[in-house]
Order: sequence, then structure tokens, then C-alpha cells
Amino acid sequence: MKLLEERILEEGVVKEGNILKVDAFLNHQMDVKLFREMGKEWKRLFADAGVNKILTIEASGIGIACVAAEEFGCRVVFAKKTQGKNLDGELLTTQITSFTKGRVFDVIVEKKFLNPGDRVLIIDDFLANGCALEGLIDLVQQSGAEVVGCGIAIEKGFQVGGQKIRDRGIRLESLAIVDSMEGGTITFRS
Amino acid sequence: MKLLEERILEEGVVKEGNILKVDAFLNHQMDVKLFREMGKEWKRLFADAGVNKILTIEASGIGIACVAAEEFGCRVVFAKKTQGKNLDGELLTTQITSFTKGRVFDVIVEKKFLNPGDRVLIIDDFLANGCALEGLIDLVQQSGAEVVGCGIAIEKGFQVGGQKIRDRGIRLESLAIVDSMEGGTITFRS
Repeated sequence: MKLLEERILEEGVVKEGNILKVDAFLNHQMDVKLFREMGKEWKRLFADAGVNKILTIEASGIGIACVAAEEFGCRVVFAKKTQGKNLDGELLTTQITSFTKGRVFDVIVEKKFLNPGDRVLIIDDFLANGCALEGLIDLVQQSGAEVVGCGIAIEKGFQVGGQKIRDRGIRLESLAIVDSMEGGTITFRS
Repeated sequence: MKLLEERILEEGVVKEGNILKVDAFLNHQMDVKLFREMGKEWKRLFADAGVNKILTIEASGIGIACVAAEEFGCRVVFAKKTQGKNLDGELLTTQITSFTKGRVFDVIVEKKFLNPGDRVLIIDDFLANGCALEGLIDLVQQSGAEVVGCGIAIEKGFQVGGQKIRDRGIRLESLAIVDSMEGGTITFRS
């Protein structure tokens, strides 16, 4: 998606350790006009998928998922990273390793919000090693619902996550795929 | 806001300890059609406030803030509850006690995203004792920006938060104010 690639080039910052900071518009400060265009693009790509629910994970997936959900006319469920006192229903649980935060999270969704028959689009801001996405896919599959696809804002194409997901036959649409950030220069997959 | 009150009555669940669960439509599963109507209502209420930025806090404020931001034509910044490895800019920090999670969080915003001259609307899903909201107000005031108001989805009118904020002369618009949940019966302020 040209618009997103341009914004990454304009406002993204490459940091040591293959970190791409896009907090000016994607995951700390959030440019909702851009989110609207991203939502339209996912809707175009998944127009035939019969999506009736979007699943994302807190925190930075929530904004893009909500705007995209308006395009699909469906609800959003966000997976939670810790179990607060208010969670008392039957839970679906999985574990996700976050390399950014340097720890393993228990990730949960209340069972009643994902059901057999649901056609779920998973939305997230980043795909790198694929741990978060695999955890979300696991939650959907535990529920008996179907993963009809995954919509990612930025995929780090030089890490293994995207390949792993595609090798499983799961439809994955990343709006920008960064193939290299060597020397601070961002190269996109064409 | 009639629509929100109706949804609280239909899908809200009162639990022991004065807990109101609205996770079917507000803060776990998210009904973005309802969020759009809430965003329009905040826009109507704060039409004259010159809002150019919305501040919220992860995680459950993000969805409503993003949809509302489209109504205001502005960006959203969400305050983060812990310091991840990717945060390396100059930070504004405050502390918030979460009674739901039973702990104190360090809450941060990168300084560059709140600036003198910004006219900030703070959006959050719940207001009870007011700790989260006071933390967010503190962050804005540290930055030199102005808090032009606070938009809350559900205020627990029987707790002290709303009164404390209004007593400081800060404009606070809660779309539904629950004055009592005694015996599981929800009574709204008219």
C-alpha cells in the first residue's frame, strides 16, 4: 500500500536491533485518517471472505482494528495480555512471547466472544517472528471459529513470521513488507 | 446518551464489588457502530473546544478514542502503562493506581506527542475514582498543552472521580452516569 510505505519512509525511524519505530502515526500517536485508508484496503483485499468478526490484541492493534471493523460492518474483539479481576467468564488462553517487551504473556479472550461459525479476520500492527499472530490464530481455532485471514500493517519480511503463516495456508495480507533496513535504509518488497 | 444507556441496560452485568461489566460492547468485544454514535455525541458536546488532539490510555480507551478522533479530524495519542524497549525518547510520566488490576502503573507518553498549544480532549471508557483521568490530566499539564475537556463513556456517579474533576473546573462530559447499581438494578442520572 503506497500510502503506508510513504509514511514509513517519511516518519519511520530505524533503530539498532532491527527496530522500526512508527510511533508517530501507528502505535503511540495514531493517524486515524491513515487508519481509514488501511481499513478500506483490507476490505478490498478480503471483500470475498465473509468476515463477521475482527480479532486483534492489545494495545496497538485496537485502533486499526476498530477503524477497519467499520469497513466490514462487524465487531472487534481484542485479546488481553493479563488476567484482570473483571475476567470471570470461560476463557480461551494462549501464550505469546514478546521480544519487544522481553517476556511471555498469557493472552486471553472470553470464550463467548468467539464462536463456531464466526469468520474471523485477525488484524495487528506488526508481524516479525509471528508469535503474536500464531497465538491469535490458536485462540480462534480453540473456539471453533474460522480464521479467514490476517491483515497486518507492517511485516518485517526479513523475519520468519510471514513465511510461517503463509506456509500454513493462511491468507496473509500485509500492507507494507519491509525486506531490509540495512544501514538504516528501508527497502520494501515490490 | 440514550443509546448507550439502553445498551448498558441490555448487555451490562452488575457484579459484586460495584463492578459493571460491559465487555460485550465496550471494552473486550467492541461495537464500533455504537462507538461512532458516541464519537458524534462528544463532537456535538465539544464542538466549540478547538480540539486538535485526543489523549487516551491503553487498552480499552483506544477504540473509542480512534473513532471519536475521526469526528474531530485529529490524531490520537495513547498513554502506555509500562515502559517497553522501544520507548527511548523523552518521556512524560505519571503514576496511576488501578483498582481493577490491584496495582500501581507507571504511565508514559513520549514528550514529542503533546506540545504547548495542543488543545487536548481526554477520552476514556470508565470514570470511577478518577485516578486514571487525573493521571492523564497530569501528563497533559506537564507537556504545557491544555486540557479542553474529558469525554467519558460510563461514569460511576456514586464514586468520587466525576465530582473531583468537575470541582477542578475541568469540563467533563460522561455519556452515561450510573448513580446506583444497588441490588443489581442500574439507575442513571437524568
